[in-house]
Amino acid sequence: MKALRYEKGRLAVEEVARPSDEREALVRVTLSGICNTDVEIVRGYAGFEGTIGHEFVGVVESATGARELVGQRVVGEINAGCGECELCRSNDSRHCARRTVLGIVGRDGAHAEFLRLPVVNLLRVPDGVPDERAVFAEPLAAAWGITERVTVDKDSSVAVIGDGKLGLLCAQALSFKRPARLVLIGKHSNKLEIALRRGIETATLYEVQGKWPRTFDVVVEASGSESGFALALELLRPRGVLVLKSTFHGETQVPTSRIVVDEISVVGSRCGRFAPALDLLERGAVDVESLISEEYPLAEGVRAMRRATEKGVIKVLLRP
Amino acid sequence: MKALRYEKGRLAVEEVARPSDEREALVRVTLSGICNTDVEIVRGYAGFEGTIGHEFVGVVESATGARELVGQRVVGEINAGCGECELCRSNDSRHCARRTVLGIVGRDGAHAEFLRLPVVNLLRVPDGVPDERAVFAEPLAAAWGITERVTVDKDSSVAVIGDGKLGLLCAQALSFKRPARLVLIGKHSNKLEIALRRGIETATLYEVQGKWPRTFDVVVEASGSESGFALALELLRPRGVLVLKSTFHGETQVPTSRIVVDEISVVGSRCGRFAPALDLLERGAVDVESLISEEYPLAEGVRAMRRATEKGVIKVLLRP
Repeated sequence: MKALRYEKGRLAVEEVARPSDEREALVRVTLSGICNTDVEIVRGYAGFEGTIGHEFVGVVESATGARELVGQRVVGEINAGCGECELCRSNDSRHCARRTVLGIVGRDGAHAEFLRLPVVNLLRVPDGVPDERAVFAEPLAAAWGITERVTVDKDSSVAVIGDGKLGLLCAQALSFKRPARLVLIGKHSNKLEIALRRGIETATLYEVQGKWPRTFDVVVEASGSESGFALALELLRPRGVLVLKSTFHGETQVPTSRIVVDEISVVGSRCGRFAPALDLLERGAVDVESLISEEYPLAEGVRAMRRATEKGVIKVLLRP
Repeated sequence: MKALRYEKGRLAVEEVARPSDEREALVRVTLSGICNTDVEIVRGYAGFEGTIGHEFVGVVESATGARELVGQRVVGEINAGCGECELCRSNDSRHCARRTVLGIVGRDGAHAEFLRLPVVNLLRVPDGVPDERAVFAEPLAAAWGITERVTVDKDSSVAVIGDGKLGLLCAQALSFKRPARLVLIGKHSNKLEIALRRGIETATLYEVQGKWPRTFDVVVEASGSESGFALALELLRPRGVLVLKSTFHGETQVPTSRIVVDEISVVGSRCGRFAPALDLLERGAVDVESLISEEYPLAEGVRAMRRATEKGVIKVLLRP
């Protein structure tokens, strides 16, 4: 089968053996999405080698011990736990110390014709959700995961920094908590427009300069840039919460004394639960279609990856 | 009167006018303590110029509208709020945007013969607490303030990094929450010995290398060093809380993706309430005497400040 692989510093679509389905489910991928983490892996993040990709929708070909899943359309949680530790036994493998992570840690990923995942990781996609929406289950779950880490309610004032795919999903997800104020801050009017159409207040980085010092209870940093971190600190009120969403390679210069003096909390947030994300997708509550910039056949995966890093591009999809 | 002042890049004991007591209390300082923040101010932290120092005990000379305080022995909360904003009206000026801070922001400090503070900032020192203990009220309040920012209870495993004056106070303060495990980690066996005598487990940096990966629920970084921050991240379990206590000049290189992937919370903690600290001091519950390395007359303030930065020295006091 074809797979988009990163190995020995080189990204290429290669012919590899189809994964075996021993003790897991084999899924035929019908659509996968390029995430910024994929781009960061090719820059050295996480030290991963193998088939990249972790956002997908597909059809179950075989599933050890769960024959009822065969033929079903599914999405899948990307963390595969050991199944034995306390975390896994409490049904949350996201922090299992021995976990593999689809296309990120020790497990071939989704930019391929087939992938394998434990049966427990798979969730059926409701019939009313087409593949082009279902492929957003993983990043939307990650956006919704913010609400597991910080309280956002009707009294909250919230800013989201970054109008890329992640920021656009975070802003839309958080809007369902009906915060007193929610602003998406970004660079590109065409991207901000997508949030604006959902009734979300937007502002450009230029407009924000010095405008809202120490104003927001919660700021979500989804731009993955050092300047985004600095802006977040400027926007936060004392004892506010800065949510870090972006994973990227390298370190960030942080003015730690500002965190101490203003008693800021910096809260990391990674993966979320898929069930609430599928629910949002089924209700048509989130505009994900507008996020799709282009679709490439898997065979053109290298070109698609390059395209995903270009200015103005939001989500690039791959079809095996 | 004499005052230890930092101005135009120069630290010196100078003769200055006694502060006026208009609308505030005038306090004759009987003992003050040198904090690492004083040292950082002389390195450029906070951009402060004037009389430094914020840890003190003294006697009220005059107090507008609070004659009953005159002649009383007091300590004082260092943040002086505007008195009008929402925070001040809720009796917490620590984050008032227009606050001054004793010896740190816009207000002459405590390494002087006299200081002034708002009457509401002063707390009577119980008779049983000698000056040499009372002078620790401010840093002990800051240590106890951790418990306002993060839950520490009988189920918590907690590590404190840094065996300086702040770390020793943090470890002792947190021990009163009876956590399942509490370890103070430092460089100096003579300093760790002070905690050990209070029944607190200790370990040297050398012993800790690779010993407790992803182990602790809460790690308090009180060393103020970049290596302390890195060690804290190593010791924390996923979704653990890193409490930042040290204010210092400059920025820190932070591996933000580690914070995201392990969903760490980095929580800044600065000033605490004085009342619980005075209570701990009155009960004799905390060994502060062992922290006193040396005492100098205020006239030798410059020498004392230099001494406070030397290896092996813990708390240096100044007596006007």
